[in-house]
Amino acid sequence: MANMTSGRIWPEKLHAFCVTAMVKAGMREADARITADVLVTTDTWGTFTHGTKHLRAYLRKVAAGGIDPQAVPQVIAEGPAWATVDGVKAMAMVPSVMAMNLAIRKAKACGIGYAGVRHSTHFGAAGYYASMAVEHDMIGLAMSNVDTNMTAPGARGSVIGNNPFAYAAPAGAAYPVMLDVALSAVAAGKIYAAQALGKAIPGNWLVDDEGLPTTDISNYPRVGSLLPMAGHKGYGLAVMVEVLAAVLTGAAVTGHVRPWAGPTIGEMTDEGHAFIAIDVAQMMPVAEFKARMDSMIREIHAAPKAKGVDRIYLPGEMEWERRADALANGIALPADVLASLQGLAEDAGLDPQALF
Amino acid sequence: MANMTSGRIWPEKLHAFCVTAMVKAGMREADARITADVLVTTDTWGTFTHGTKHLRAYLRKVAAGGIDPQAVPQVIAEGPAWATVDGVKAMAMVPSVMAMNLAIRKAKACGIGYAGVRHSTHFGAAGYYASMAVEHDMIGLAMSNVDTNMTAPGARGSVIGNNPFAYAAPAGAAYPVMLDVALSAVAAGKIYAAQALGKAIPGNWLVDDEGLPTTDISNYPRVGSLLPMAGHKGYGLAVMVEVLAAVLTGAAVTGHVRPWAGPTIGEMTDEGHAFIAIDVAQMMPVAEFKARMDSMIREIHAAPKAKGVDRIYLPGEMEWERRADALANGIALPADVLASLQGLAEDAGLDPQALF
Repeated sequence: MANMTSGRIWPEKLHAFCVTAMVKAGMREADARITADVLVTTDTWGTFTHGTKHLRAYLRKVAAGGIDPQAVPQVIAEGPAWATVDGVKAMAMVPSVMAMNLAIRKAKACGIGYAGVRHSTHFGAAGYYASMAVEHDMIGLAMSNVDTNMTAPGARGSVIGNNPFAYAAPAGAAYPVMLDVALSAVAAGKIYAAQALGKAIPGNWLVDDEGLPTTDISNYPRVGSLLPMAGHKGYGLAVMVEVLAAVLTGAAVTGHVRPWAGPTIGEMTDEGHAFIAIDVAQMMPVAEFKARMDSMIREIHAAPKAKGVDRIYLPGEMEWERRADALANGIALPADVLASLQGLAEDAGLDPQALF
Repeated sequence: MANMTSGRIWPEKLHAFCVTAMVKAGMREADARITADVLVTTDTWGTFTHGTKHLRAYLRKVAAGGIDPQAVPQVIAEGPAWATVDGVKAMAMVPSVMAMNLAIRKAKACGIGYAGVRHSTHFGAAGYYASMAVEHDMIGLAMSNVDTNMTAPGARGSVIGNNPFAYAAPAGAAYPVMLDVALSAVAAGKIYAAQALGKAIPGNWLVDDEGLPTTDISNYPRVGSLLPMAGHKGYGLAVMVEVLAAVLTGAAVTGHVRPWAGPTIGEMTDEGHAFIAIDVAQMMPVAEFKARMDSMIREIHAAPKAKGVDRIYLPGEMEWERRADALANGIALPADVLASLQGLAEDAGLDPQALF
C-alpha cells in the first residue's frame, strides 16, 4: 500500500487534496474536479513539471486576481464543425476541457471539429486534452501559445513561445499513441535543473543576449532565450501554433502574452488554445483502425534495436506504463512536487497528512 | 528577358514543356496541367529538390507501370467535413489537388475540413497543397507518409519515413506564412550532396548499421538511416503524420510503403496523404485575421537581430520572395534540374530548346 513510508501517494488522495484547496480558493467544486483531473492525470504519466506541482502557483494567481475562480467560460461563436470559447480569465483547464469536448461533439457530427479558446492562461499538459479524444475513439490534437521565451533564427532575444503541441490516437491492444512536446530544443525546466545541479548544458539549447549559442546559464532567464527544436523547423511549427491557437481565436499573440507567474501574476495572460478532434468511426470501422494501429506499433516494437538498447518505445508508451503503475501502486511524486504541495497546504490552511 | 544566356527559364515555358512531356506519356492534358502547376510553383519557391527535377523519374515510373497516367481518382467516402479519396495509382498530384479542394469545400461548409488519400505515390512539395487554402483565405495543412528512411530512438535501422508536413496561413500586406519540412534532422538530399562534394556531415544527421550516430556516409543509403529532427520529438510527429495520412486513409503504413524509384519503380508506392483546411471567415472577419497576422509578422521582423544578422524571416518568406523574382525574371534553375529536364527531353523525344 502506498503511504508516507513508500513515498508514494494515491491519485485519489492527491485529487481530493487538490479539489479541497481549489474550493477553499473560491472555485466551484465541479471546476475544481476538472482541474484536478488534468493535473493528477499528468502526474500519473510522470510529467511532473506540468502536474500538481503548479497548483500552488495557480492558486496564488487566483489570490492575486490573475485568475477568476468563479468565471464561467462562454461559447461565443460556433458553426457545424467549430467553436470559439472565451475563457474569461477562468482557471485554464475549465475552458480547455470545455473546448476539447466541443471539438469532440463537432467531430461526432461532422467528422472533424476545431475549438479555439481566448482569454485563457497556462493550461497544463497539452497531452491531457489530446487524450480526451481517445476515449471517444477519436484522434485528438491540442496546442497553446505561451509568453515569448524562444528565439528565431537570426533573432537576438525571444520572439515567440516554445508553444506546446500534443496529439493522441487510439490503438487496440496497444496503448494509445500520444506525444506532448514543447517546440524548443528543451523546456526551460531543463535549464533550471542544470542551474540547480551546477551542470553544463549542450550548445544547442540557448542563445545569449547577442543571439549567439551559449552554454552560460548563470543569468538565465534574465539573459538568454531558448533555441527552437531543429532550428527553423521548430520556429516554423511554433508560428503554426501561434496562428491556430492565438491569431485565429482572438487571444494575445507573441509578445502580448503575459507570463503567468512573476510580476504579471495579477493579470490574465490571455493565452489562446486550439483543439482538434477527428472521428475515426466515420472514415473507417474503429476495429479496423485499431488493428492497423496495433500492426504499426507491433512492427516498430519488433524492429532491430540499436546497440545496447532493449526496447523501442512508441510516443506516449512510457507515460501510459507509468500511469498503470501509478494507479496500481500510487504516484512516486518527486521531492520538488511534494515540497510544492506542502507549501500549498500551508497557503491554504490544509493538513498535508491528508495526502497520505 | 530570361533566356539561355541568363540561365533563367520562364515559368510558363517550363510549365508548357512539362505538360507536353506528360501528355506524350499518356496523361490527360487537364491532369498534366495540375501536375505541372505543382512542380513549377515548387521551382519558383526555389525548392528545386521537389520540383520539375523529379518529372523525368515520375514519367519513368509511368512507363514502368508504377503510375497509371489515365487513372481517375475517386471519392470513396465522405461526410459533412471530411472525405477519403482513392488515388488508384494516379500521378499523385492529381488526387492530392482533388483532396485539398475537397478539404477546402468541406471547410467552406463546416468551418474545418479533412480529406485523406490512399493508393497514391510521391506527391512533391507538401507546401503546394497547404498554400492552396490561402487562396481561399483559409489555413491549410498537408502531409504524407513516405517509405521508411528514418530511425527512431533505440532502433538500429529505418522504422518510419521522414514524413513531410506543411502548413500555410494567409496574411494581409505580408506574404502568407508557410512551412514545408521533412521530419528528419535533414533531408536525404543533403547527404547525397555531401557525398557528391566529398564534404563531412555533422554527427546528428545519420545512424550507422548498429543504430549509433555516424558521420560515415560512404555507403549511404545502403548503410545508414536518417535521424529524426529533435530526437523523440521528430519521431513522435512522424508517427502523427503516419496516423493521419496512412492509418486513417487505408494507405500502406511504414514498412509497407514501397520506394517510388529504384527496384519498385513498377509498383504503386501506396503512400497516403492528409489535408486539412480551416475557413478563417467563419471564426473571425478575414480583414481582422489578416491584420492580426500582419501585426505578428511586423513584430517578429522588428525584433532585435542576432550579431551579424540583418533580417529575421517568417516561415515561407524566402520562398515567396524567390517566387516574386521567378515570376518577374524567370527561374534560375540549378544545373542538376536543367540536366534532368534535358534527360526528360531525350526520354520523351522533345526539343529542350522549347524551354528557352
